Amino acid sequence: MTYSVAVSGASGYAGGEILRLLASHPDIEIRTVTAHSNAGQPLVEHQPHLRSLAHLTLQDTTPEILAGHDIVFLALPHGQSGQYTDALGATPLVIDAGADHRLTSQASWDAFYGGDFHEPWAYGVPELLVGGTKQRETLRTATRIAAPGCNASTVSLSLAPGVAAGVIDSGDIVSVLAVGPSGAGKSLKTTLLGSEILGTANPYAVGGTHRHIPEIRQALAAASGAAPEGIRISFTPVIVPMARGILATSTAPIVDGVSDAEIRAAWEHAYEDETFVQLLPEGHFPRTADVLGANTALIGLAIDRAANRVTVVTAVDNLVKGTAGAAIQSMNLALGLPESRALSVNGVAP
Amino acid sequence: MTYSVAVSGASGYAGGEILRLLASHPDIEIRTVTAHSNAGQPLVEHQPHLRSLAHLTLQDTTPEILAGHDIVFLALPHGQSGQYTDALGATPLVIDAGADHRLTSQASWDAFYGGDFHEPWAYGVPELLVGGTKQRETLRTATRIAAPGCNASTVSLSLAPGVAAGVIDSGDIVSVLAVGPSGAGKSLKTTLLGSEILGTANPYAVGGTHRHIPEIRQALAAASGAAPEGIRISFTPVIVPMARGILATSTAPIVDGVSDAEIRAAWEHAYEDETFVQLLPEGHFPRTADVLGANTALIGLAIDRAANRVTVVTAVDNLVKGTAGAAIQSMNLALGLPESRALSVNGVAP
Amino acid sequence: MTYSVAVSGASGYAGGEILRLLASHPDIEIRTVTAHSNAGQPLVEHQPHLRSLAHLTLQDTTPEILAGHDIVFLALPHGQSGQYTDALGATPLVIDAGADHRLTSQASWDAFYGGDFHEPWAYGVPELLVGGTKQRETLRTATRIAAPGCNASTVSLSLAPGVAAGVIDSGDIVSVLAVGPSGAGKSLKTTLLGSEILGTANPYAVGGTHRHIPEIRQALAAASGAAPEGIRISFTPVIVPMARGILATSTAPIVDGVSDAEIRAAWEHAYEDETFVQLLPEGHFPRTADVLGANTALIGLAIDRAANRVTVVTAVDNLVKGTAGAAIQSMNLALGLPESRALSVNGVAP
Amino acid sequence: MTYSVAVSGASGYAGGEILRLLASHPDIEIRTVTAHSNAGQPLVEHQPHLRSLAHLTLQDTTPEILAGHDIVFLALPHGQSGQYTDALGATPLVIDAGADHRLTSQASWDAFYGGDFHEPWAYGVPELLVGGTKQRETLRTATRIAAPGCNASTVSLSLAPGVAAGVIDSGDIVSVLAVGPSGAGKSLKTTLLGSEILGTANPYAVGGTHRHIPEIRQALAAASGAAPEGIRISFTPVIVPMARGILATSTAPIVDGVSDAEIRAAWEHAYEDETFVQLLPEGHFPRTADVLGANTALIGLAIDRAANRVTVVTAVDNLVKGTAGAAIQSMNLALGLPESRALSVNGVAP
Repeated sequence: MTYSVAVSGASGYAGGEILRLLASHPDIEIRTVTAHSNAGQPLVEHQPHLRSLAHLTLQDTTPEILAGHDIVFLALPHGQSGQYTDALGATPLVIDAGADHRLTSQASWDAFYGGDFHEPWAYGVPELLVGGTKQRETLRTATRIAAPGCNASTVSLSLAPGVAAGVIDSGDIVSVLAVGPSGAGKSLKTTLLGSEILGTANPYAVGGTHRHIPEIRQALAAASGAAPEGIRISFTPVIVPMARGILATSTAPIVDGVSDAEIRAAWEHAYEDETFVQLLPEGHFPRTADVLGANTALIGLAIDRAANRVTVVTAVDNLVKGTAGAAIQSMNLALGLPESRALSVNGVAP
Repeated sequence: MTYSVAVSGASGYAGGEILRLLASHPDIEIRTVTAHSNAGQPLVEHQPHLRSLAHLTLQDTTPEILAGHDIVFLALPHGQSGQYTDALGATPLVIDAGADHRLTSQASWDAFYGGDFHEPWAYGVPELLVGGTKQRETLRTATRIAAPGCNASTVSLSLAPGVAAGVIDSGDIVSVLAVGPSGAGKSLKTTLLGSEILGTANPYAVGGTHRHIPEIRQALAAASGAAPEGIRISFTPVIVPMARGILATSTAPIVDGVSDAEIRAAWEHAYEDETFVQLLPEGHFPRTADVLGANTALIGLAIDRAANRVTVVTAVDNLVKGTAGAAIQSMNLALGLPESRALSVNGVAP
Repeated sequence: MTYSVAVSGASGYAGGEILRLLASHPDIEIRTVTAHSNAGQPLVEHQPHLRSLAHLTLQDTTPEILAGHDIVFLALPHGQSGQYTDALGATPLVIDAGADHRLTSQASWDAFYGGDFHEPWAYGVPELLVGGTKQRETLRTATRIAAPGCNASTVSLSLAPGVAAGVIDSGDIVSVLAVGPSGAGKSLKTTLLGSEILGTANPYAVGGTHRHIPEIRQALAAASGAAPEGIRISFTPVIVPMARGILATSTAPIVDGVSDAEIRAAWEHAYEDETFVQLLPEGHFPRTADVLGANTALIGLAIDRAANRVTVVTAVDNLVKGTAGAAIQSMNLALGLPESRALSVNGVAP
Repeated sequence: MTYSVAVSGASGYAGGEILRLLASHPDIEIRTVTAHSNAGQPLVEHQPHLRSLAHLTLQDTTPEILAGHDIVFLALPHGQSGQYTDALGATPLVIDAGADHRLTSQASWDAFYGGDFHEPWAYGVPELLVGGTKQRETLRTATRIAAPGCNASTVSLSLAPGVAAGVIDSGDIVSVLAVGPSGAGKSLKTTLLGSEILGTANPYAVGGTHRHIPEIRQALAAASGAAPEGIRISFTPVIVPMARGILATSTAPIVDGVSDAEIRAAWEHAYEDETFVQLLPEGHFPRTADVLGANTALIGLAIDRAANRVTVVTAVDNLVKGTAGAAIQSMNLALGLPESRALSVNGVAP
């Protein structure tokens, strides 16, 4: 069968990437695309790269227009998707690319986001270790899915094998991410202007204020079985001059007494059967270019005994594996389709 | 008086930047520029931005040609400057931009560089805390100066105030640096091609192998009075698509019981009188664009109690404050000239 | 049926892109990948983005290893493919991404390339107007195909409708192209280093020396039925800091007496049924980002009566529509497969 | 003596660059900086690279605040500087970085800008040929100066020698410019976002609509003594991913019968005594990196007999030689100071 789809926020970066991937999905008919201020305009005015969707016009983002599809993607600013939830009660599958349904802890929501708290949905990172299984199992039966934060899923996938296996100490994690500006969306802010981005590296949300921190702590707690309170992370994102991509360098202390082989085995074991999360051979580390446009997370692992820390370097495309690809992969699971449909494992390089 | 100068390695990036800065120095006459394979060619063929030096021709890099100047700058690949040291015995001031004279520990040299070990020279980072004073004092009487490694001096300046004041624990430092490819020099390597650098973030020397690690440990040991062995650092550089610049994010555990005010005071006190190392106001963090072409290190400091770590973000231009500017600033000190002569505190932005 | 394929030059940019596209082609089995100095190494060492081909090892580029496949792609430096032609006499389909078989005029070959002249093969630009038909027709029965020069096909597609329709004067064309450095290949040249490419625009082959000039003249002569001698073009490529992409701005004098409608109709008529060459609506012009990774050429057309010139701005991905995509599209035609198989019309943006 | 200066539009790119250059000018005291919506904030919040001006606070842009200085720089959006002209009647020297006082033809103003027409001021391009002399002479006695449009002055300097000498035909000029986004100012437009600028080339104002066209025609008419109506130019700017810089490729037909030597002599003669406009040796062409931060225009000249066109490639830093540097150079002339004071001929590269 062919599933009818509506995508809201279709003029933005996350919405555009959902559409790019869906456009090559053989089981999907993109029936409706919506936006706010841009409603009434051709989609291609705002997404000029989506040539195969040149026939679509942006409609208003209203519950009425979104209702009546098999699948609805919400790619709205944080705090806005909650209002559509009730109206979409009859929609078989709803996938939210925003943050509204990611956190299980209202206290974390209040501390990092604020505004109305919404119930958590199935978290859209299939490869994430959860107890003795993977998040994939939950997604197979999900009807409401929260796509992950791009930085959060990158760091969580980086470290979950180590915390689950007990070979690293999750109480003193340090993550520093080189990120492209598309993760900040198509927002008109001076700091996001090309002249401010080109030729420079620019940190933001330094010192523990980034909204993805509680999401990482929640995911690593789920992976390890520990309480989120025990997971501490120093998290610093740095915007660098590439439109897309996250290169996350994460380090954590090595637990006393574990061997190099035990450490490496944790990651090997976690991802050996995965298509889209791959551990590189020893001594190899990924570049974001290797995963541009792909749904792949590439992981390089180093054991630094002098520093007594494991260093995990992970590359993802923030708009694919970090957002839209995670959403489509989760959709495939929920629909019982092959998990990798319409998703590429190969990047576009150079 | 006017000092005559020879610059070796003049066709490379470090040599070029030394020349750019010297070209506007009123007390300096650039008399001789040398290179290896490019000898005989006009300097401007290799440094087309140095229009005011269009009259200079690259000569061979030989002891004879370098001798007989008041000042000689060596901007050669690591391991090559030692051979010129003897021949320059009569030269009043020699400044090496390479690594050969930076390390005091032969064991560290052997472990990270190899080849002949050379005696350490005065370390060219004037603002660095050393015991109860600053490195500036040593430089005032120096006749042989080792300009610092760009990454090393950036991290050392970032953390020295905290370790000297005893407010952070130097036993578990984590530094991740976004760096431009010019730090790797004008080397013909596939990984340094534009197509490989554009649009991507690329880590290298992951897991404790970078050659600047012992230099950082040495500098922080000097700052704190502790032994280098006690200083442990997880160090990961990531090449990002900007020609110049280092944005170093360094974190270290907060020592038990110190207050936020005590932490901040350590950095304020260390740099309050400095022109070229500036602590930004609370909540402000630097971009590399802010120091492009300038001899300035800008430091932002965050205290992250949830992670129990201090986060220090420092921006420098790797070719200026990281190399050539440090060399000129040190030269000014050694010559008794105003320390800031020919050095700009303002960056070129956007 | 499934066709077996060998790709030579598989460690380079053109070879890598051919492999990226073929990897998702349902009728193709990539059996053999070859290289010169890199033979014996895993393909993925040189193409780390091609995760689905991680099982392949680079073999030597010899006639023996290339022979015995249904299809052979030659992605070799100019002048090197000729030597394999004889040995591949029994190969049903050979596609050369190099220049050796593009030019019909030995005089042009001698003037711009030199070395042995090889017979021309079917030119791999299906949408190109040739007399009253299109190049596609020739490709349907071709067994030897010359993929185009990326700059040449971009300019030829830009202007062929106008010269074929007689609305512009091909005697005084001016084309200036912003191009990414990947078009120059993975060559170890100082001018191609990241530090030399970032943050700067750099012209090359200024003043009529670029090797794609005779190829453009040949194509436009074929489109118009005129002699190549009558076609004159001022052609200047400028390398800009994007890994991929060509944005060609081409202008030509308007023929006296033609109306705006007649001009626009020439392009509309030429490309109205084409998937991969699209004329944008009036007042719209393309960006290279719109076609990144896609096989699409997007064309914007302006009629500047004050300057008495038509301005045509065309965006292509030099590695796809400019090289590898053109090769695959031509292959599809020669095999009788759907022309667009394994080729995307949508770009990857932002 | 020291001249007191006020700079309006100090939070923008042009204003920031004027301040960067003035900050190192020994005869200038920057007394007042003004802005509109940002008034009341520290200058360094908006210009974090101007460390030496950290003591300045942005004031309101009002005639009262701007009055009472020896020199006032207006760096305001086009159409806004006229309102301050009357109030600054007593100010000895006023320099407008906007367009309001550049055009001598009201018809051109009406066609390309609209709104109130203002009288033309002395045009701030000292090296521009004007009749038998240079624009410098007018500037020596000027009290009101219009700094040039960055694209306009680049193209005018490129071609003025040829049209003045009568060796090229100004009736069919074609110019295509690769430009950085800082030329568009710090405007909050989606097309100027980093995600839209990185990795792509983007044309704008295609087809004869760019506002710098009449300014070029006016300048070349002044150089040649011909009427502006006879000067026709096809002009296309393309935004490329570099924060600063213009690389202008301009071509014009060669006049029948002139020799190569005569052509080259026109440019050599025009600029042989100039510091800031330099003709490169035959076969050499400039990159924008060569002039980053410098007040230099570098010109490469090719004679393409096959195309019957001269090709002139010129690199400038749009914010320096294109705007702020031109303003300071003109100021120096008007004040009787050395023309090059506070202006660098050397670029910052790589």
